[in-house]
Amino acid sequence: MSVYLAEVIGTMILIFFGVGVCASVNLKKSYSNGAGWLTITFGWGLGVTLGIYAVGGISGAHLNPAVTLGLAVIGAFPWSQVLGYCIAQVIGAILGSCLVYLIYAPHWKETEGNKLGIFATGPAIDNPLLNVISEAVGTFMLVFCIQLINNNKISDGVGAIAIGLLIVAMGVSAGGATGYAINPARDLGPRIAYMFLPIGGKKDGNWRYAWVPIVGPLVGGVLGAVIFKALF
Amino acid sequence: MSVYLAEVIGTMILIFFGVGVCASVNLKKSYSNGAGWLTITFGWGLGVTLGIYAVGGISGAHLNPAVTLGLAVIGAFPWSQVLGYCIAQVIGAILGSCLVYLIYAPHWKETEGNKLGIFATGPAIDNPLLNVISEAVGTFMLVFCIQLINNNKISDGVGAIAIGLLIVAMGVSAGGATGYAINPARDLGPRIAYMFLPIGGKKDGNWRYAWVPIVGPLVGGVLGAVIFKALF
Amino acid sequence: MSVYLAEVIGTMILIFFGVGVCASVNLKKSYSNGAGWLTITFGWGLGVTLGIYAVGGISGAHLNPAVTLGLAVIGAFPWSQVLGYCIAQVIGAILGSCLVYLIYAPHWKETEGNKLGIFATGPAIDNPLLNVISEAVGTFMLVFCIQLINNNKISDGVGAIAIGLLIVAMGVSAGGATGYAINPARDLGPRIAYMFLPIGGKKDGNWRYAWVPIVGPLVGGVLGAVIFKALF
Amino acid sequence: MSVYLAEVIGTMILIFFGVGVCASVNLKKSYSNGAGWLTITFGWGLGVTLGIYAVGGISGAHLNPAVTLGLAVIGAFPWSQVLGYCIAQVIGAILGSCLVYLIYAPHWKETEGNKLGIFATGPAIDNPLLNVISEAVGTFMLVFCIQLINNNKISDGVGAIAIGLLIVAMGVSAGGATGYAINPARDLGPRIAYMFLPIGGKKDGNWRYAWVPIVGPLVGGVLGAVIFKALF
Repeated sequence: MSVYLAEVIGTMILIFFGVGVCASVNLKKSYSNGAGWLTITFGWGLGVTLGIYAVGGISGAHLNPAVTLGLAVIGAFPWSQVLGYCIAQVIGAILGSCLVYLIYAPHWKETEGNKLGIFATGPAIDNPLLNVISEAVGTFMLVFCIQLINNNKISDGVGAIAIGLLIVAMGVSAGGATGYAINPARDLGPRIAYMFLPIGGKKDGNWRYAWVPIVGPLVGGVLGAVIFKALF
Repeated sequence: MSVYLAEVIGTMILIFFGVGVCASVNLKKSYSNGAGWLTITFGWGLGVTLGIYAVGGISGAHLNPAVTLGLAVIGAFPWSQVLGYCIAQVIGAILGSCLVYLIYAPHWKETEGNKLGIFATGPAIDNPLLNVISEAVGTFMLVFCIQLINNNKISDGVGAIAIGLLIVAMGVSAGGATGYAINPARDLGPRIAYMFLPIGGKKDGNWRYAWVPIVGPLVGGVLGAVIFKALF
Repeated sequence: MSVYLAEVIGTMILIFFGVGVCASVNLKKSYSNGAGWLTITFGWGLGVTLGIYAVGGISGAHLNPAVTLGLAVIGAFPWSQVLGYCIAQVIGAILGSCLVYLIYAPHWKETEGNKLGIFATGPAIDNPLLNVISEAVGTFMLVFCIQLINNNKISDGVGAIAIGLLIVAMGVSAGGATGYAINPARDLGPRIAYMFLPIGGKKDGNWRYAWVPIVGPLVGGVLGAVIFKALF
Repeated sequence: MSVYLAEVIGTMILIFFGVGVCASVNLKKSYSNGAGWLTITFGWGLGVTLGIYAVGGISGAHLNPAVTLGLAVIGAFPWSQVLGYCIAQVIGAILGSCLVYLIYAPHWKETEGNKLGIFATGPAIDNPLLNVISEAVGTFMLVFCIQLINNNKISDGVGAIAIGLLIVAMGVSAGGATGYAINPARDLGPRIAYMFLPIGGKKDGNWRYAWVPIVGPLVGGVLGAVIFKALF
């Protein structure tokens, strides 16, 4: 399997579980409606764990343009594959969103109001400059910690769980301000899917905010990689 | 021990913990009444983990006709054993339900109304076609991800935990629409047990819906196995 | 270290975390007041995990007379040590309860009413015969599953986590009816500690019920061991 | 990398996730506002797990002066490095607090009243003598159990998870009385950061209490190390 197809599949799995838990907790009449923030962080964390089990051995399971770019900047990933990886990740995120749409097919019209928040992130308090800083600092810690974990000798099959736990930690500790995109594909892919999926009560995709979870994570990811490289 | 007896025992354990958590959270006066969805997903996830520890080395711990059928279709399991495995899984599910009945013996008559939902799944929004699609898509992801996990080299004893985490992920992310049977035996066995156990306030077993968590998972399981085989 | 001292220490650790979480969730003004059932099951599960890390290599970390008796009945543990193990486990449970008393020292008089439920178990619905059956079935599954887990080849350090997850599963799925003693020492030790600790608002120790979490678990533990031995 | 810089980085990571989850759960308008105690214990537990992955191989990842002092007292750590480690840990805790400040930048002025509780610990019931005993007993168990875990042969990469689970257990079981500092740097560093960060509605840093989470943990840590050494 090509590394690009692997990134499509891995990110599809991540987003299936990640956007899935957002749908599951927020959609009206869903059995898990209102299940709470810890539940949401488990969905995202386990989504990453499963994405790594899926394609870690093939593409490295970046699943995130901020990881791909950060690794390229420090010479740990070939620049020639960066664009392909990023496109693959966004495609995977769109596909994962479509699967979530199917799982909850009868629920979309039962839930009134804007359902964009199930797909894309948005700020708890709207302040683009501070929001982009929040995403950058969060992604800095994400990419810094991923490399710190991978810097250890870890038994087979345990690393995917460790990285998933990192995502849970990011969610419980750093997720409250912007919904922790910390991954441009995680935000852009589902936002695109939201535009074309037949969801009732749709408004615009709040594209005005869409640059924040792209720029913030890319800056933070590069910082995390560079500072790791400089220190370790 | 025969592989069939192993499947009976493994599925009995799965259903003891799975139907057990549904009883524990839903029965009136239970200490864990209202404990919430994340708790429920832990019951099912750990039930699978324990079922795999129990009989993974003997029968492979399918515990699910959708897994058995999917593996048979791609030539990874002998057709001659498929029917036996499926029957064993349903028998195990019935036995597990009976053990749950005993654990909560004094609670059944304290809880008014229909208690079918503790045993069998049902749709949050009744729409058979969309419900069967939901079960099929969920089981596709289940069987696809099981094989992706097993495709890794995993340290002894960690694989059962990884598959259990997959079940937790399925529950938090894809469980809200139909209660995630994603396993015909998980639904049919407890539904049969519900019919003959002396539970107060019983109504019919909603057999009209019973085909959905059989057909959806079988279709999805075959798809998950075939697409995995084609891609990896 | 003698195996008996090891059982004292291991059970002290188990009860520190187990009775600790019951205090933490139920005592008034505690920061974790009302934290819920899943939290409680984590306290008990991790208590067992830590007890196993502590003394698993010395005494086998039974931490539970039902385990000790069950293993003796099937010839997997010397009868000559059974009584000593059981006494050690009760002593450890008393010591652990005293440490919990110290942690929450200023809280006891702030919480009105009977606080026995923090230390000892009691039935959600009072029915001694059905309660003893509930404890017996629960402990049957506990001891059956412990042996099934130990029947696997498991990487160093993972087994303690797997057994802890089993305790979490017991709690979420089978704990709602009697508070899942499934361990005579877990109930008797803290009940004794409750009698002599200076806790305000004390009533009698409900000794009328105390035989249930002794007899039920011992019967269930023997059944779990014998049936495992017969089948595997 | 020097061991001191390693302790700075490891403690920064711990506090980023630990103080982060306190901010995330307590700040108004945060998406995770009110997420509950189990969520908080996951933030702290995973913070320790990640701190160990980060620098366990370099400095041993004490991340806690009570651990450093305890190990020195029993001759397991050179006295000449004790002061340096402790200073590094406090610096790391200050840095981690600053990163949390950035993540939640727009939230500080939205939340009325004193926000000291997000940074530093305080007693649920104000009673300095009993509070210091609570912190000492808690840290005794912490340091005792850390050494008991490390006394096992544990597969690569699993130990950091096991110690993180210990922190979760400390939180759910022993955290309700004083907020479980059980670590002088965890309390002092963020308390200092609180003094100079531009947070609205600030009051004094409750420095009257600040000796409790320093003295209690140091006494408890020494006891935990000495009693471990005497027994094992």
